[in-house]
Amino acid sequence: MKLIRFGERGSEKPGVLVNNTRRDLSEEFSDWDSAFFSSAGLDLLRALLRNRSPESFREVPESTRWGAPVSRPRKIVCIGLNFHDHARESGMEIPREPILFLKATNTVVGPNDDLLIPRRGEKTDWEVELGVIIGKEARYLASLDQAADCVAGYCISHDVSEREFQLERGGQWSKGKSCDTFNPLGPSLSTPDEIRDVTKLGMKLWVNGELRQNGNTGTMIFGPAHLIHYVSQFMTLEPGDLISTGTPPGVGLGMKPPRYLKAGDIVELEIDSLGRQRQHCVQA
Amino acid sequence: MKLIRFGERGSEKPGVLVNNTRRDLSEEFSDWDSAFFSSAGLDLLRALLRNRSPESFREVPESTRWGAPVSRPRKIVCIGLNFHDHARESGMEIPREPILFLKATNTVVGPNDDLLIPRRGEKTDWEVELGVIIGKEARYLASLDQAADCVAGYCISHDVSEREFQLERGGQWSKGKSCDTFNPLGPSLSTPDEIRDVTKLGMKLWVNGELRQNGNTGTMIFGPAHLIHYVSQFMTLEPGDLISTGTPPGVGLGMKPPRYLKAGDIVELEIDSLGRQRQHCVQA
Repeated sequence: MKLIRFGERGSEKPGVLVNNTRRDLSEEFSDWDSAFFSSAGLDLLRALLRNRSPESFREVPESTRWGAPVSRPRKIVCIGLNFHDHARESGMEIPREPILFLKATNTVVGPNDDLLIPRRGEKTDWEVELGVIIGKEARYLASLDQAADCVAGYCISHDVSEREFQLERGGQWSKGKSCDTFNPLGPSLSTPDEIRDVTKLGMKLWVNGELRQNGNTGTMIFGPAHLIHYVSQFMTLEPGDLISTGTPPGVGLGMKPPRYLKAGDIVELEIDSLGRQRQHCVQA
Repeated sequence: MKLIRFGERGSEKPGVLVNNTRRDLSEEFSDWDSAFFSSAGLDLLRALLRNRSPESFREVPESTRWGAPVSRPRKIVCIGLNFHDHARESGMEIPREPILFLKATNTVVGPNDDLLIPRRGEKTDWEVELGVIIGKEARYLASLDQAADCVAGYCISHDVSEREFQLERGGQWSKGKSCDTFNPLGPSLSTPDEIRDVTKLGMKLWVNGELRQNGNTGTMIFGPAHLIHYVSQFMTLEPGDLISTGTPPGVGLGMKPPRYLKAGDIVELEIDSLGRQRQHCVQA
């Protein structure tokens, strides 16, 4: 299943994507949120879609805005330096265990919303990432199998950064990761059965049509189940939480000389089986 | 006004503390949450309390649990190394600008709830802090006056840390700041008019009756209005968000040799005008 949300920001409604058409499920469900995931909502949704034809649900007009495919998460855990080739490129050591940081959750916007360049920010950078949405509470998990069972689905997560705020303004990374609109999410949330092999997904990002990132989840150091198991030893993951699993090579900070986003730029992101995002950069 | 919440965890009700007695306001208000603060709820509450005597509201039985005084925040921003004397004690330079990190919001518990020592955690440490709850959206604020106007109130915030997770496990501090129960909050949220001078509040913390922290907000480097103004340049603060403004000297990490919490310990915290917390440490 491919879950989507549509409508104005702050009042999105739930739906599904079937044969490239968005279908409105707001009469059947209130939202794709923590309550939905924690009450076995995905099973109910699956049963509903088995019993009714897609055409029986109202089609969402093409002009309607795409929202983030899930309601605002209560926690966003990001993983730093999680790709072999990106670590090599940066001249950094391969981390022995995952590097975690948190991102403010009011950064989440739709996949094609404007990306705001922060005021007094000269180093806004892109990062295409595989996002994992948690479907079940994860606390001190005992095995990778348990961890895999906590995945509700996958989506593109654009982990936007302001590198000066992140790295040159004292202390911790969150300062440059939490600006407004810094986490475009979607277009859809694909349940695990939609994806043949999550360890073999191409990941691409373009700026103004020029390919900047061209990676593959195959060079990830710690995969989704490993990450969920690991994070659950330090904090409780809740249904609806987001893990952004790190970015492959090709970010602006790594270019020689570094290159960053400016108002007017167009950023596009794609991950195999997960669709495509497109953001227009606008001065905040 | 002193806002409190009471009842079982996850279903707390709102009330106020008047002359040391808790009064139940759940018939008048649904919760002290983001919606309450953003709809000028504090003004409504003030008007209500002017027009009715405290005795006209049901008394909360003494045995009823104290909840955190506000609903779960959507963001917790913590400030590192924000006390002159603590920085000196640690042999660290005074930060030129505030050090920020984020803490997962499911760490928030009541002021007297059990404190869980994380599994495989040997270095659980205490930090008494002045917590600031945001009352109005703060985004690119232009002045300290604007920032001061965004304060809904103050409370004790216990910013518990696991030092090994925070400092020795790779990367960013959030890993050791976000374990279950790591942010006891309360007992009450005092509106600014309840506090004579927020820059002159004694802050104390005891472990098993032994005084470990004995500081004063007077040695803070960046005060609450400065912090709100500063944070608003990097991320949008929302009504109901919490800023934990940093801790004075005397944490376990700074003792020679370092000393940490273990199951069975009792931690007590006090800030002038803001009341007292008491936690019993229990193995997770």
